[in-house]
Parts: sequence; structure tokens; C-alpha cells
Amino acid sequence: MERLSPVFSTNKSSNKEVEHWMNSLKEVEQVLDAVEPKLTSSGTKWRVVAQHIKDICGDLNQIFNKEDPRYEVVQAGASAAHDFDVRYLDIHKHGREVSRLLEKMQKYRQEIEEIKKEYKESDKYRERYDHYKVKLDNLEKKNKDQERIERNQQKFKDAEAAYSSVCADLIQKMETIWKKHVSIFAEAASAVWKTQLQYAKALEAAAAPVIPYLQQEDEEEEQEQQQQHEQSQGAENASRASYEKTENRFARNSGVAPSFGTASEQRTEQSKNVVNSSKNVSETSPTENIEA
Amino acid sequence: MERLSPVFSTNKSSNKEVEHWMNSLKEVEQVLDAVEPKLTSSGTKWRVVAQHIKDICGDLNQIFNKEDPRYEVVQAGASAAHDFDVRYLDIHKHGREVSRLLEKMQKYRQEIEEIKKEYKESDKYRERYDHYKVKLDNLEKKNKDQERIERNQQKFKDAEAAYSSVCADLIQKMETIWKKHVSIFAEAASAVWKTQLQYAKALEAAAAPVIPYLQQEDEEEEQEQQQQHEQSQGAENASRASYEKTENRFARNSGVAPSFGTASEQRTEQSKNVVNSSKNVSETSPTENIEA
Repeated sequence: MERLSPVFSTNKSSNKEVEHWMNSLKEVEQVLDAVEPKLTSSGTKWRVVAQHIKDICGDLNQIFNKEDPRYEVVQAGASAAHDFDVRYLDIHKHGREVSRLLEKMQKYRQEIEEIKKEYKESDKYRERYDHYKVKLDNLEKKNKDQERIERNQQKFKDAEAAYSSVCADLIQKMETIWKKHVSIFAEAASAVWKTQLQYAKALEAAAAPVIPYLQQEDEEEEQEQQQQHEQSQGAENASRASYEKTENRFARNSGVAPSFGTASEQRTEQSKNVVNSSKNVSETSPTENIEA
Repeated sequence: MERLSPVFSTNKSSNKEVEHWMNSLKEVEQVLDAVEPKLTSSGTKWRVVAQHIKDICGDLNQIFNKEDPRYEVVQAGASAAHDFDVRYLDIHKHGREVSRLLEKMQKYRQEIEEIKKEYKESDKYRERYDHYKVKLDNLEKKNKDQERIERNQQKFKDAEAAYSSVCADLIQKMETIWKKHVSIFAEAASAVWKTQLQYAKALEAAAAPVIPYLQQEDEEEEQEQQQQHEQSQGAENASRASYEKTENRFARNSGVAPSFGTASEQRTEQSKNVVNSSKNVSETSPTENIEA
């Protein structure tokens, strides 16, 4: 279709509703632009987690010591890490959620592209409408013959009707296409969470053989804390009892309470002994009486 | 202590067991070198996952459309992503498992450093031992006076006893220190898995409000598949029945079966109609009768 240049330069007409839907569709496109590459790279984030667990557990499993029962935990940890890596890969390779979604998004993008083309083509109708609008204005201003004005009035009416019909058609189509984004975005949110939960479940399933060791450790820790609590309670009671006894004895004998070193002073004394005795072992004075 | 240079250059003595434990401790150090930075960066792997979910769900939530009921899923997804980010940070900041473990590893490293110093110091005893060994050899070779040989034999015996005592002490300490790695590595494997499970559980807890939508979607999908199955089954039965009817009617009338277009031919015909009718709408021929 040949392009019509307006008779005189003038402001272009525009349909506000068409422009509104065009902007809305551009917003949707921007979201698609942002989301598509992220969805594509979704699996790599979990690859990093899987690789990280495998790396640490592999490092810890470098030194074999099958005699020590605690080595079982190290081994179970490494084997669980390997298991998670396999499970991760399986979800990543065969997870259809995301690939199906990306296909839908591609199709949706095409629909938007097509309506954008229609929008571009509608400009010819706008041009024809503007052309007769300006022309009629000029004819009327110049008081041209009535027959010519009337003929152009009819042309203008036809152009206006055609343009408005094309706009109405565009608006209806654009709104329909725009509304589709909600179900696609909802599906995307679902797919993201479904996939994340699949990975989390895979992690838990892989960790299952490690869990008994973790529980055992928790129990041991609790027992340790319990024992420490009981010991400190017992020591407190014992020291209170012995202090009372001593005090009573001294009170009975002379009425003067003895001065005791504090517990920490006593501990320091003990550790000095340890240091001294270890010095006795390691310092057999190799320099003494050397005869060259 | 002053260093003794051997009387003549000679091969250094070495205690095989001490060397074995020194190498074993170096292996442990290598594992610590590899594991420590990975443990430190453990949280960042999950930060990437949390950020990724938050980014996608945030993008999807850019366009508000509260009228559409499916928008709820988008909103629930975004709010769950935010919730997981908060939960992730809480585990990352207050997770004591890993920081406690790193402290233990630091202390263990110091123990290894100290025994390496003792090992270095034991070299003085080795040097004294080697010194008298070489000296005695030379005195005997040169047939020196018996008194001098005997005096040096005594010195050699003393040096040998001191060196062997220091080695025995070292071996016992090194083995004790080396054996500790199993419980520390077991604790590390446990800490890694405990932390990973905490993150996975946090992800599931955050996803809880999204799960009903995922289940609903699964049900809808199942129903859709069921309906499609029933429809295709129904269509098959219907077409078989109508074909049989028509065939019977024609058979009754003329005995000649009519030729039918295939289903896909019929569909093509239909879509052509659609294309034509849409052409009728959009092509109101704006170029016709243009009067410039």
C-alpha cells in the first residue's frame, strides 16, 4: 500500500486505547526478556550447590581410616553428596516444567510480535484519516466549491470509519493477548517453585542415610551438656559441703577460717606441673657434654 | 642449642615412623586447606539460589492484575521467594554449626603446627646421634686408643637413647593428633549436611503457601488430559457411528460409498475461512479512491 504524505505537516492522530495496550504489551515483553534467560539458567544455581557439597565431602573423604567408627559419617556424607549430584542432574535434564514453559513463552512472544505488525500496518489507516482531515480543513478555509468539499467530506468519513474499525479490532486483539500473560506468569511462578521443591526433596532424599548420624550426634551433644551440667552442679555441692566441713573443723579448733586459693589458682598450679613434667621428658639436654 | 655439623658429610639418619606420621599430618593439613575456604563460602551458594528465585518471582510480579484469579499464584510465588530469602539469611547469619567447626579446625591446625615445631626441634637430637655415630666409626677405622673409643661409645649410646626417646614421644603425640582428624572430619561432614538440610527445609517452609496452587494445577492438568482422552475417544466413536450410518444409507440407496475429505483437509478449509474473514475486517482497502 502506498504511503500518503499529509498535505501539510500536522500532528499525527493517535488512538489512546491502542497506545495503552501497546505499552502494556511492551511491559509484558520486558518481563519475558528478563525471565527467559533466568529460567534457562535455573538449573545452574543448583549445580553450584551440588558441586559444593560434593567438593567438601570429597575432600573430607581423602584420608581413609576405616578402623575409626566415626569414619562412617565421612563416608556416608560423601556418598550422599554423590547421590545428590546424580539426582540433581536427573531433575535438570528431564525436568519438563521449565522447557514446556519456555516453549509457551516463545509462542506468546510470537503472538505479541504479530499484533505489533498489525499495529504498524494500522498506521496506513491513520495516515489516510489524517490526510483527509487536513485536506478538508484547507478546502474549508479557502472556501473552495461546495461539491469538492462534500466529496472530500464523504472520503473523510469513510477514512475515519475504516481507521476506527481497525483500531477497535486492534484493541480487542491486544487486550486478549495481554490478558494471557497472567496465566503464563502464574505458570512460570508455579514452575519455578515446583522445580525448587524438586531439588530440595532430592537433597533430602540423598541425605537420608546421613540423618541417623546427625540425630546420634545431637543426642550425644545433649548428653554431654547434661553431664557437664550435673558435674558442675555436683562440684558446687561438693565444694560447698567440704568448705562447710573445713570451716566447722577450724571453727571448732581455733575459730579462724583458713585461706584457700581460688579454683582457678589451683588449676594454674596443676597446669604448671603438667608443663614442667613435659619439659622433663623433652629436655634431655642434648648439648650437655658434647665432645667434638 | 648450638647446631653440630657432622664430622664428615654423611647421610642423615631418619626415623621412618616419625616421617610416616609427619606425612600423614601434612595430608590432614592439605584437607584442612581445601575444606576451610569452602566451608566459609558455603552460605553464598544458597544465596545464589535464594536470589535467583527472588529475581524471577519479582520479575513475574512486575505487572499487577488483581482482577485475574491466577494473579494470586504470581503473588504467592513472590512472597514465598521473599520469605525464603529471609529464612536463608537467618540460617546463614546465626548458623553456629559451621562457625563452631571452623574454630575447632583452627585449634586443630595449631596443634599440628606445634607438633611440627617439636619435630623440627627433634632434629638436634638426630644431629647429636649422627655426630657420635660418624665419629665412632672414624675412631674405630683409625684404630684410636681404646679409652677414647669407649668414652665416645658411651656418648653415642646416650645420644641414641635421647634421640630414640624423643622420637617415641613424637610418634605417640603425632598419632594422637592425627587420629583427631576423623572426629573433626566427621563433624564437618555432619555440619555440611545439617546446614544443607536446614536450607532445604527453609525452602520448603517458605514454599508452603504456594503448594496448594501447585496441587490445584496438577489436578487441573490431570482433568484436562482426562477430558482430552475422553473427547478423542468420543470423537472416534462418533465418527465411526456416523460413517457406519452414512455408509448404510448410501448402501441402501445406491450401493456407492461417498468420498469424504480427510479431517485435516476439513480443518485447512476451516482455517482458510478464518483467514478470509479476518482479511475482510482489516482490509477495507485504504488505498482505494484516494483523492490527493
